Amino acid sequence: MDEFDQYRAAMNEKLLGSNHLGIKRFFALDTQAYEDGALDQKTKELMGLTASTVLRCDDCITYHIKQCASIGVTRDEFLDAFNVALVVGGSITIPHLRRAIDRVDQVLESNDTSEAALHKHE
Amino acid sequence: MDEFDQYRAAMNEKLLGSNHLGIKRFFALDTQAYEDGALDQKTKELMGLTASTVLRCDDCITYHIKQCASIGVTRDEFLDAFNVALVVGGSITIPHLRRAIDRVDQVLESNDTSEAALHKHE
Amino acid sequence: MDEFDQYRAAMNEKLLGSNHLGIKRFFALDTQAYEDGALDQKTKELMGLTASTVLRCDDCITYHIKQCASIGVTRDEFLDAFNVALVVGGSITIPHLRRAIDRVDQVLESNDTSEAALHKHE
Amino acid sequence: MDEFDQYRAAMNEKLLGSNHLGIKRFFALDTQAYEDGALDQKTKELMGLTASTVLRCDDCITYHIKQCASIGVTRDEFLDAFNVALVVGGSITIPHLRRAIDRVDQVLESNDTSEAALHKHE
Amino acid sequence: MDEFDQYRAAMNEKLLGSNHLGIKRFFALDTQAYEDGALDQKTKELMGLTASTVLRCDDCITYHIKQCASIGVTRDEFLDAFNVALVVGGSITIPHLRRAIDRVDQVLESNDTSEAALHKHE
Amino acid sequence: MDEFDQYRAAMNEKLLGSNHLGIKRFFALDTQAYEDGALDQKTKELMGLTASTVLRCDDCITYHIKQCASIGVTRDEFLDAFNVALVVGGSITIPHLRRAIDRVDQVLESNDTSEAALHKHE
Repeated sequence: MDEFDQYRAAMNEKLLGSNHLGIKRFFALDTQAYEDGALDQKTKELMGLTASTVLRCDDCITYHIKQCASIGVTRDEFLDAFNVALVVGGSITIPHLRRAIDRVDQVLESNDTSEAALHKHE
Repeated sequence: MDEFDQYRAAMNEKLLGSNHLGIKRFFALDTQAYEDGALDQKTKELMGLTASTVLRCDDCITYHIKQCASIGVTRDEFLDAFNVALVVGGSITIPHLRRAIDRVDQVLESNDTSEAALHKHE
Repeated sequence: MDEFDQYRAAMNEKLLGSNHLGIKRFFALDTQAYEDGALDQKTKELMGLTASTVLRCDDCITYHIKQCASIGVTRDEFLDAFNVALVVGGSITIPHLRRAIDRVDQVLESNDTSEAALHKHE
Repeated sequence: MDEFDQYRAAMNEKLLGSNHLGIKRFFALDTQAYEDGALDQKTKELMGLTASTVLRCDDCITYHIKQCASIGVTRDEFLDAFNVALVVGGSITIPHLRRAIDRVDQVLESNDTSEAALHKHE
Repeated sequence: MDEFDQYRAAMNEKLLGSNHLGIKRFFALDTQAYEDGALDQKTKELMGLTASTVLRCDDCITYHIKQCASIGVTRDEFLDAFNVALVVGGSITIPHLRRAIDRVDQVLESNDTSEAALHKHE
Repeated sequence: MDEFDQYRAAMNEKLLGSNHLGIKRFFALDTQAYEDGALDQKTKELMGLTASTVLRCDDCITYHIKQCASIGVTRDEFLDAFNVALVVGGSITIPHLRRAIDRVDQVLESNDTSEAALHKHE
């Protein structure tokens, strides 16, 4: 997951560092779309996760899993979201759901470890 | 919208009346996927709406708009959901969003009228 | 269905009458792909129908339904094919399956009528 | 085509009149993406037309055909663009190409008529 | 291919072990969809392979190749199925077909080796 | 990138060496689609790149980047093409654009090195 984050950051920098105004503005819109508004951030991140799953984009799924986990989405909520995506998108989404549940468990475990480490130092 | 509902009901009956066990079970799973669970119905219907929009299926969008409106999703919430779908799915979703906002206004107006009629008879 | 056939024929003529060599050759490949080979025509038409359904193209579905019906695919076989497409492609294919079963019944009924008329004149 | 333009304008107004900042900004980005830049407008409109065709969105195809025709794209150039889209996207694009060539001929004819009317008044 | 099978099995277990009723029932439907019915298993597996190819899912293609090979689909039949998928889905499927033919040859060779070993022990 | 080229060549040979007439003819059409015609090769390669990006096929994107670079497409022109694809296809294309800009820089740098080496020997 660290490798994923590093490549993602380096290439975003390449894209944004190219100073193409359209691309920069699109990235800003992308960030803003998930902020609290008429719908709250959690609902929007879950919508982003579902959309990424039915469109079958592993990197997008990983990104939204991390976002969701950081704002407290539980394993059961992830499974419920995956179920909606599976029904809408069909069995073609299953290979992505296999990788997704793997990532969910990595992210939730890593969050638990961080929290445990934090409490140890209290 | 009435024509849409009637055709939808008649053809669902044709499909389900054919007694293909697999198809019948899939329809049951589809209904159950949006019921309250780890995530509530409103979140799931909004996820279904977003998935339908990025996959660009007008009939599915219409169906989820009606479901969402019936459980109190507001016009501003619909717009916020459309914005997530637009950013994820791109300008190719715009023709579907044009038809979607048209339906949102029809459904919300029709709900208002029904409610007004109801109150009149109180 | 007649209107569909007429528009289809007229526009194919426009496309092919334009004498673009690439387009003409593609149309030839498209026709040849469903002819008997290592796999027989029926299997290939059913594969074409499934592919058209998961890619959600109503006109392609209608075309393959007519082809399938003309070589004896039965209503139960159509339903079995639709079930595979439904499981692979998910609930997003359902609006297309509603229109598909409608067409299957139109085509099968029309074939029955033609055959009955034929026998009457024997 | 007039009906298409009117519905498109009315619903765009509905969407933009809702004052959702994200949606308004996306529409601005969409317009700017096709303006002269490192690549000229004609190349970009042809790219938009190809993208719309492989993604199989009739309304988007119609829009880019009108844009292309208004900056002088010829019938042979349209056919060459359709051929690229057909090879990349496969036979599933053919129903869209049938409607596309129909619109190309309507738009080019309508442009000829306007020009002829213009010259008559010189 | 062994690594693929192991990861697939482990993650399916994670998904199914989570006891989400919807997900479990979907997996059951997925298995049942390819069993003998109005259409036989071979036809359905070939339909699943074609659907997976036009939807461009490598893992799904690999899975159906293994299923098809285990029930006797020949190399020539695979090529004929790939050709239908290529025509329907276009050149965008070619990278998947390159990996698919690679897997077909691995699977068929591995089956030959198993069979040879079996006969040796007769 | 060398590994990509070698696997691509070896598997194309496997596919074409199988002597399936339909597949061979499709590959010929694919090559011819990008040759100079009513539209020139550069415009067509850019259209192929955009189509590959909105359909999210990394191998196809890599192929068209190499083709584009070999006929002089500049980094700014690539960015402008990516922007059109991003607006049409949405944020779901971003992971592909990250890998695409990485490849653009590899290909352009490698071309620069080759050219420098060439001039050194003049």
